[in-house]
Amino acid sequence: MNNRFPTNSVGLVKPRIIHFEEPLELACGRILPHFDLVVETYGELNRAASNAVLICHALSGHHHAAGFHTPEDKKPGWWDEYIGPGKPIDTNRFYVVALNNIGGCHGSTGPRAINPATGKAWGRDFPPLRARDWVHSQSRLAAKLGISQWAAVVGGSLGGMNAMRWALEYPDRVRHCVAIASAMKLSAQNIAFNEIARRAIKSDPDFHNGDYLSHGTLPRNGLALARMIGHVTYLSDELMGTRFGRELRSGTFERGLDAPIEFQVESYLRHQGDSFSEIFDANTYLLMTKLLDYFDLAREYGDDPVAAFSHAQCKFLVVSFTTDWRFSPQRSREIVDALIAANKDVVYANIESDMGHDAFLLPNARYEGVFRAYMDNVAREAEQLVRNA
Amino acid sequence: MNNRFPTNSVGLVKPRIIHFEEPLELACGRILPHFDLVVETYGELNRAASNAVLICHALSGHHHAAGFHTPEDKKPGWWDEYIGPGKPIDTNRFYVVALNNIGGCHGSTGPRAINPATGKAWGRDFPPLRARDWVHSQSRLAAKLGISQWAAVVGGSLGGMNAMRWALEYPDRVRHCVAIASAMKLSAQNIAFNEIARRAIKSDPDFHNGDYLSHGTLPRNGLALARMIGHVTYLSDELMGTRFGRELRSGTFERGLDAPIEFQVESYLRHQGDSFSEIFDANTYLLMTKLLDYFDLAREYGDDPVAAFSHAQCKFLVVSFTTDWRFSPQRSREIVDALIAANKDVVYANIESDMGHDAFLLPNARYEGVFRAYMDNVAREAEQLVRNA
Repeated sequence: MNNRFPTNSVGLVKPRIIHFEEPLELACGRILPHFDLVVETYGELNRAASNAVLICHALSGHHHAAGFHTPEDKKPGWWDEYIGPGKPIDTNRFYVVALNNIGGCHGSTGPRAINPATGKAWGRDFPPLRARDWVHSQSRLAAKLGISQWAAVVGGSLGGMNAMRWALEYPDRVRHCVAIASAMKLSAQNIAFNEIARRAIKSDPDFHNGDYLSHGTLPRNGLALARMIGHVTYLSDELMGTRFGRELRSGTFERGLDAPIEFQVESYLRHQGDSFSEIFDANTYLLMTKLLDYFDLAREYGDDPVAAFSHAQCKFLVVSFTTDWRFSPQRSREIVDALIAANKDVVYANIESDMGHDAFLLPNARYEGVFRAYMDNVAREAEQLVRNA
Repeated sequence: MNNRFPTNSVGLVKPRIIHFEEPLELACGRILPHFDLVVETYGELNRAASNAVLICHALSGHHHAAGFHTPEDKKPGWWDEYIGPGKPIDTNRFYVVALNNIGGCHGSTGPRAINPATGKAWGRDFPPLRARDWVHSQSRLAAKLGISQWAAVVGGSLGGMNAMRWALEYPDRVRHCVAIASAMKLSAQNIAFNEIARRAIKSDPDFHNGDYLSHGTLPRNGLALARMIGHVTYLSDELMGTRFGRELRSGTFERGLDAPIEFQVESYLRHQGDSFSEIFDANTYLLMTKLLDYFDLAREYGDDPVAAFSHAQCKFLVVSFTTDWRFSPQRSREIVDALIAANKDVVYANIESDMGHDAFLLPNARYEGVFRAYMDNVAREAEQLVRNA
């Protein structure tokens, strides 16, 4: 490890691309003839292969969950706060697997990959995906890494949906499911915000009906707008008030002046939108928000969450945050109620935080304490399985 | 009254345009050389001119607050629920004045009016406005109608801000101020949503930097997006859940089908956005959201709401709605706390409703009861002034 990194960091990490030659049949009925997943792993798989933890990313996430890609990196991976030596997902004890999901735009097969049928980028023709398609591709990844059962599948937001779907698709291959700031399905309001974001992208003249790559354009403005809409819903009203209030970035309210006045929050949001639009793919954004909208854990279990969870064999940790209004504590309580009614083991914590939905990524002593205590038990179980092996 | 209308309707009404020849100096320092206001009135001004009630509209409102313009109209004015014979704002007792404010797009002088300096529509060059500019133009209107003191100035949302500004600008000319679902200033989150809406409008290629009229275009798509964003924030998560849930309008989740799936809420929102974009002016939308952002009741009173309200001489009714997250009950409580600290008479009601911010426009028995009781006292006072005259 490079000693310029903090001692509780996984340090320098390197993503690798894993190729899967076997076709993957998708929920929509179409087939991906082959696919790549870009993956990072932290820690070592033990000899019983009992300590593997799968990290499922959220809407804009990817494989780079912890550590640094170069010694010059200013920011670590997106969940570095909770993954590393001595951290709740303790890389001294766990073998941590983080990936970019199919449909993504960070190196795994998605709209920017080449469609073998045409020799051109998939673009708008990339098949629509469901969370179960991610689970199935992740299951192939597990097999390739020699993992027959995950110690835990862990995710926040959309990642929590991914984790819950694992618990139902392959009940005997997950010992623990950790669903943070998540929900069994989106509300109408969630869908509404996603639809507005999609319309913003689609109505950008540079979108070209999804075919922007072959036009040599990028729908930057539409994607920036989509991100700005999303971003407001990730933050709490309280947090925005504390962080920005009504502070001005330019202009003045002095009478007589007609110069443009800009609030700090406007400039912040514009920056968030514009930076995102440089690094993210618009077709991926459309595809992932549709996946989110369509996700409904209990749909094929007669719309009965208890019936759905009765198929699970794992134990659950469910966490929500008091000011999260995108996936509110009520959504997590619905998960917990269904788990209890299905006689499942579940630990639930509703964490006091003023950080809104983004709280699942951010430092918080109580959240860290709950997460650490739960994962400590998961690690002990994994270590017991080595001794039993 | 046309007997095809309900007996508690003001029936057929006719807007009129009132011209003001005297220049109006605006808060920005610029001057409107003359202006028009389009106005509707309901009921009769009594001989003491003590029963006049001013209705202040919200962001997308206008002068048509009650009654019908033609016998064929399917919908009455926007606040017909609360204005009419026997209704809380009882037109048998009050002389009700509703107007479209300057900057508007429904007939009063605004971006679509002719700029006398150029002979062309003002468009993007219309001066930026503050709520006090509305108050000053409304003061001219009062003078023209022979009203030296309003029995009440009443408004919801932005209209409530307008009403509160009246109470501070002309303390001796308002006996009652009714501020419903309002706030002393926007939060950073409110500003953020407004800024996203503005960016959606400005980035529409048909916007032409605000000069769309001379290009013969309309930024319909940008305005539709802006309205969709606004609309989601007017509704509560609960209401959207009850009204739309996750019902589909087209498509199916059956495996194998690749047809587009559309949720009801998506189609509803699209309809809201598209209809709005046909009737509203984009420059007015920009101007009004900026007015909203800049509104800060206490700014020139040392940022002290108590100091601000200590200038008021009227009594206050403040109403909020439990599921309103755009102007939450907390914002109304801040108004009430400041009024109490300033030793003002205030009645406050936080109304149980699942309708979100839009609740102020919609039927609700408890809201109606509180509103009616308060306005009954206002009417009695007005009637006493006739007897004393």
